[in-house]
Amino acid sequence: MQAVHVLGIGQTAVGEHWEQSLKELAGEAAFAALADSGVDRVDGVFVGNMLSPSLNRQMHLGALVADWIGLRGVEAVKIESACGSGGSAIRAAVLAIASGAMRTALVVGVEKMTDSPGHETTAALATAADADEEADHGVSFVALNAFLMRRYMHAYGWRHEDFAPFSINAHANAVANPWARLREAVSAEDYARARMIADPINLLDASPIGDGAAAVVLAADGTQDRRSDPVRITASAVATDSIAIHSRADPLWLAAAERSSAAAFAQAGKKPADIDVFELHDAFSIMAVLSLEACGYCEKGQGPRLGLDGRITVGGSVPIATRGGLKARGHPVGATGVYQMVESVQQLRGEAGPTQVQDARVAMAQNIGGSGATVVTHILERD
Amino acid sequence: MQAVHVLGIGQTAVGEHWEQSLKELAGEAAFAALADSGVDRVDGVFVGNMLSPSLNRQMHLGALVADWIGLRGVEAVKIESACGSGGSAIRAAVLAIASGAMRTALVVGVEKMTDSPGHETTAALATAADADEEADHGVSFVALNAFLMRRYMHAYGWRHEDFAPFSINAHANAVANPWARLREAVSAEDYARARMIADPINLLDASPIGDGAAAVVLAADGTQDRRSDPVRITASAVATDSIAIHSRADPLWLAAAERSSAAAFAQAGKKPADIDVFELHDAFSIMAVLSLEACGYCEKGQGPRLGLDGRITVGGSVPIATRGGLKARGHPVGATGVYQMVESVQQLRGEAGPTQVQDARVAMAQNIGGSGATVVTHILERD
Repeated sequence: MQAVHVLGIGQTAVGEHWEQSLKELAGEAAFAALADSGVDRVDGVFVGNMLSPSLNRQMHLGALVADWIGLRGVEAVKIESACGSGGSAIRAAVLAIASGAMRTALVVGVEKMTDSPGHETTAALATAADADEEADHGVSFVALNAFLMRRYMHAYGWRHEDFAPFSINAHANAVANPWARLREAVSAEDYARARMIADPINLLDASPIGDGAAAVVLAADGTQDRRSDPVRITASAVATDSIAIHSRADPLWLAAAERSSAAAFAQAGKKPADIDVFELHDAFSIMAVLSLEACGYCEKGQGPRLGLDGRITVGGSVPIATRGGLKARGHPVGATGVYQMVESVQQLRGEAGPTQVQDARVAMAQNIGGSGATVVTHILERD
Repeated sequence: MQAVHVLGIGQTAVGEHWEQSLKELAGEAAFAALADSGVDRVDGVFVGNMLSPSLNRQMHLGALVADWIGLRGVEAVKIESACGSGGSAIRAAVLAIASGAMRTALVVGVEKMTDSPGHETTAALATAADADEEADHGVSFVALNAFLMRRYMHAYGWRHEDFAPFSINAHANAVANPWARLREAVSAEDYARARMIADPINLLDASPIGDGAAAVVLAADGTQDRRSDPVRITASAVATDSIAIHSRADPLWLAAAERSSAAAFAQAGKKPADIDVFELHDAFSIMAVLSLEACGYCEKGQGPRLGLDGRITVGGSVPIATRGGLKARGHPVGATGVYQMVESVQQLRGEAGPTQVQDARVAMAQNIGGSGATVVTHILERD
């Protein structure tokens, strides 16, 4: 596949942006990415979003965002794969550039969730699950993940407190990230006494929703000399699984994450140990654990060990959630995959401040839709 | 751009399919297209859909459809650009194949609209318009098109009856199409006395909604010898415009249709007169008129003349809606763009029965999202 470079990145803080409309949020991130890239016009706009049809009464975000940012007329489209929408939008843009049909593309992930009543948001998030088989029976998305965590603890003998390092690490890293929603450190004691949400998932196992937008400007080979610090996308892979968890051969194995990461490793000629930064999809502690296992960082059932041994911290062998992750940067669902790429690029450029991973040269960003039904993996390398 | 071929087509009848779920509908069309293609496994699944988040409480259709049709694991994604979703999904698949990342792809457009109360469907369709600027002020999607038609009649001096040939032609062609929703001929008298919906749009100016799915199997160059009658996609282009009609320089000119078709003509090395079949987006009579003008088939303001002179019929110089069009085949919104391509391929293969355009060698399918905000144009040629 033809090489694709990241020329620019932009993001809004994740939070409650009641003063900004959906398109204004998207615009803020897009303008930041365009300014950062030095490109003023792109050949295509790819918008990742999940919930605007439900929560904002607005579809058709491709044309809407393109027009709002002054690119009326340009090719544009909206991509959705639940919480994997941002990653899927990047994937679509990578393919468009690799095809030769475009030289440059802007990807914007945007989500505006906090204007809506909580029960509406919960119902909307459940549309990531299988309506016929899961959601219509009253299972919320958090409940599905609670099933997984409970089952995992039962199968492998882990205690709830063994998951604490994932939350603690994410929060510690978010403190230094000005765009993060929860910039506050938490302790093992905080984790132990956090309010229960859906047993065994407590408040510190679950990522917070939020309003936010992130954007990247991608460009074809030959354009990278516009920057002194270009980052190259050396792998892009998507795999799927059954949406309904009970249809999977093993509910505790993210087959799509395994397949997607294996394809990405093969494309980039890398193995798990070659990744300096891994921005994974820690929507819940259990998702971080299952992702690490599926991507080959430990044996099946041993994910919590990586946290307990300190290997997931910025100084560890597999640093994750280095800017706070979904857990503490926040999870504006359709935008998350683009935030992950923005943060990976920050690390590769050496712009990650106090949570900079030393001499980071290879980063992997993995965005998950549903509880593992769509998994999008990108590997990025400093040129 | 690398050539992409259409190896298979499939569709369900458009109608009220209360006995089939969303994924079952998608599967019926997908299985038909796969069987027609001779391909049993594809590298990617692209689903075009607009309303499932609103009307079916289901997002994440890429993984859902892939799993349902037995392709669990394969790359999959959902694409949305309002009523242009089907065409946009085809565009995404064309780019994926052209990139070299995939050899084969399945595109499925699916929509299930008739299980919902009418007011919910009307509200959901309004999300194709600009929420802040149009829909939140109470303007339905039909009303927006009524503004356009009224303004057009005023600006150019046409009477309502001058639009009758568009409805009459579409219905006449649908009679012979077993997959069409309204297989009944209508007369000028029927048109004149049809019930008013949103003045001046009456029942015979407006396309009916419906449940339905259509699918195509696309493949890279070198695969076309699988069929004796391969069809090649020789142009693929998308352009956008402001969603809000009042933001456009001229509300009566579909700038995105002009731009999109001009790009497509240039890619294929064709001019308007070279097109033997034009499957256009006749969601309303006025949209057919504006599309013909923007694509260069007549002077601005003269679209109705093409109908009055009999040029839009199967035997005319620019046959449109040859299988019934949106008006009479029906408009399952996110699926429509794929139906248009299926029908274009039927014409190029000589499978269009009583409405076969003689010696059709070049077809153009144009799918519109919103009232002209996203326009996707494909040109297909018989090899």
